[in-house]
Amino acid sequence: MTAEIINIGDELLIGQVINTNGSWMAEQLRLSGIDTQRITIIPDEKESILLSLREAVERSDVIMLTGGLGPTRDDITKDALAGFFNCGMVESNEVLDDIRRLFSQNRWTISALNARQALVPESCIPIRNNNGTAPGMWFEKDGKCIVSMPGVPFEMKPMLTDQVIPMILGKYKTGALIHKTIHTIGVPESKLAEMLESWEDRLPGNMKLAYLPQPGMVRLRLSASGIEREAVEKQIEEQIKLLLGYLPDQIFAYNEDTLPLILGRMLLERKQTVATAESCTGGYLAHLITSVPGSSGYYLGSMVAYSNRVKKNLLGVDGHLLENFGAVSRETVVSMAENARIKFGADFSIATSGIAGPDGGTPDKPVGTTWIAVASDKACVAKHFLFGNHRERNIHKTALFGLNMLRRLLLNI
Amino acid sequence: MTAEIINIGDELLIGQVINTNGSWMAEQLRLSGIDTQRITIIPDEKESILLSLREAVERSDVIMLTGGLGPTRDDITKDALAGFFNCGMVESNEVLDDIRRLFSQNRWTISALNARQALVPESCIPIRNNNGTAPGMWFEKDGKCIVSMPGVPFEMKPMLTDQVIPMILGKYKTGALIHKTIHTIGVPESKLAEMLESWEDRLPGNMKLAYLPQPGMVRLRLSASGIEREAVEKQIEEQIKLLLGYLPDQIFAYNEDTLPLILGRMLLERKQTVATAESCTGGYLAHLITSVPGSSGYYLGSMVAYSNRVKKNLLGVDGHLLENFGAVSRETVVSMAENARIKFGADFSIATSGIAGPDGGTPDKPVGTTWIAVASDKACVAKHFLFGNHRERNIHKTALFGLNMLRRLLLNI
Repeated sequence: MTAEIINIGDELLIGQVINTNGSWMAEQLRLSGIDTQRITIIPDEKESILLSLREAVERSDVIMLTGGLGPTRDDITKDALAGFFNCGMVESNEVLDDIRRLFSQNRWTISALNARQALVPESCIPIRNNNGTAPGMWFEKDGKCIVSMPGVPFEMKPMLTDQVIPMILGKYKTGALIHKTIHTIGVPESKLAEMLESWEDRLPGNMKLAYLPQPGMVRLRLSASGIEREAVEKQIEEQIKLLLGYLPDQIFAYNEDTLPLILGRMLLERKQTVATAESCTGGYLAHLITSVPGSSGYYLGSMVAYSNRVKKNLLGVDGHLLENFGAVSRETVVSMAENARIKFGADFSIATSGIAGPDGGTPDKPVGTTWIAVASDKACVAKHFLFGNHRERNIHKTALFGLNMLRRLLLNI
Repeated sequence: MTAEIINIGDELLIGQVINTNGSWMAEQLRLSGIDTQRITIIPDEKESILLSLREAVERSDVIMLTGGLGPTRDDITKDALAGFFNCGMVESNEVLDDIRRLFSQNRWTISALNARQALVPESCIPIRNNNGTAPGMWFEKDGKCIVSMPGVPFEMKPMLTDQVIPMILGKYKTGALIHKTIHTIGVPESKLAEMLESWEDRLPGNMKLAYLPQPGMVRLRLSASGIEREAVEKQIEEQIKLLLGYLPDQIFAYNEDTLPLILGRMLLERKQTVATAESCTGGYLAHLITSVPGSSGYYLGSMVAYSNRVKKNLLGVDGHLLENFGAVSRETVVSMAENARIKFGADFSIATSGIAGPDGGTPDKPVGTTWIAVASDKACVAKHFLFGNHRERNIHKTALFGLNMLRRLLLNI
């Protein structure tokens, strides 16, 4: 069984509002085993709505529309639906009661415009709206369902999960479709594809693999379909076990987990703390760590030392090191990490120093040259990277790779 | 002339990734006077791509595709396009050179998979990709253009604005449509609308105003259309002069300029420096400042003091202040700002301390309670804010309002 989503609204077509409804609905449907095969955004125009509906019923079993159900003149979805199903409008007493109740609760007066919202196409089953005045509508035709819902997320969301999805599941038998996302770091997409070729070749026919690259990271999404949910889940877990053999160090998280979150969990479990000393990341490393709620449980702080004088005076980096080796060097970044760990009184530290660009590069140290160090009370490891020319990406990658270096260190002690 | 956008990618259909590309592209097209009449998301499937293309060329003059151009097996857009235009594949020397250059810059080795990205359908003009290996492709057929671009925003965005839109405008004639964005801070949308009512009422008929609220800020977009570009531009400037009379302190930038950029320019002109001391913003304030290229010319660094011990030991905040008034108080944030200014040897400083949430609130100081201070050698100004329950927003607003407090201070001395 396949679904299709049609989001109606001019504001979605001029870039003023991002269509978050579409992806949220697709996710809810997927969690119920229903595959969305298309999401379409169209304007508040009767002809566009009719054309999209005609195309959609050719392809899909379930068609969900949102938007265009308000009381004002630009809301024309209801008329379009009456046209599509070639029927008149009737007043629904149930909906009118709901509207009256909502208004009396809020001590508002009902206008003629509001009362008109109780008019629905004759051939639909109205779906009650607990958070607004526009009812949803459920139509059936030739074994297919067409469902229309309000576009306001606050009204649409509970209507979809509490009423519409149960109605669909009652009507159709759905199989299981399960996705698992695997987060990897440090290997580019094409190299990863080579490393995984033989594993990918042997994936069972009901499984699909997708590569989702991000700066410095690649997410792998493994999808599997089948009759029974448990069996499919087991199948996915088996494949992930095999995958771990190919990528023992590169996989750091699954599904919604992030690198700062995973690192935070590791530190909390060990009851240990971390501090940072940042030059080229300029506070972004601290920001990633502190974007995790509860990070004050393991994170002490950062010294963002953007000038050499601050590296010397506040972080205690030896002036001779800075003169002889430069701010972007193994020697300086090691000193930054070691001094930060001691000054903050932390168990671990991460330090960054690099030329983020666009200026500041030299033939010896071009833009993108970066040093990252991670220190514990036992040792300090420093690594050299050569990133690209893009400032924002260089900052982002440096912070991620710094977090990953600490993750790797924690795994090995 | 009308456009249509087709975003290809399974990840967009399972709710894993929100289709921000679609709305961003629609906005860029609109800014160039091109109307988007449909945005469609389809899976990485050849049949879906072909069907969508067939439908789109019936309706629209320009069809833009994104996604499915990577080197891995799930990327099949190129094959589908060769099928649609019924042509074979050829190797583009230009594209191969670009890939070689990118790889040698990064000292990577080119794999067979990478080299395959230089293969393009015979009937297309390849569009060079300055930020990745997958070229864009420009096709023409029966007076219509079909353009295929990578789905990675970092690669697609400059390709669209710098290459594709100029190619479209070269092919079709469009009238002058000019937009100017005015950035305001500190006044909520509804209040702003009240303040601007009489100005808005008197706007000429060819001008349109849109309110684009963001956390803590509202952008106003003024659009004007006409025959001659220069006359329209002059008209917009006249209206902005009037607008400045209504919002003398709230407007801080135009078009692509940001608050950190504007503040950086002011400091560079005065040859003065700033340092920061951050608790609740956790490095985000430093990150905003250092995301501006050249910020090392006026920014010295930040002490991210996430724990009270660090506030005391490294920032020199008096322990009695912390005990008697708490970390989130006027007294503490003033001490943080004053000490940071002196320790870093800066002309100015910004300090933040607040309860970002979700935990840590008390009846006296609920989540969202925030203090921000700005110090110079003459004085220190501290302000209290009560933001909401959303951690990320609280961090973001605190950093922005801190930057704005320094901007206002600089304007008055």
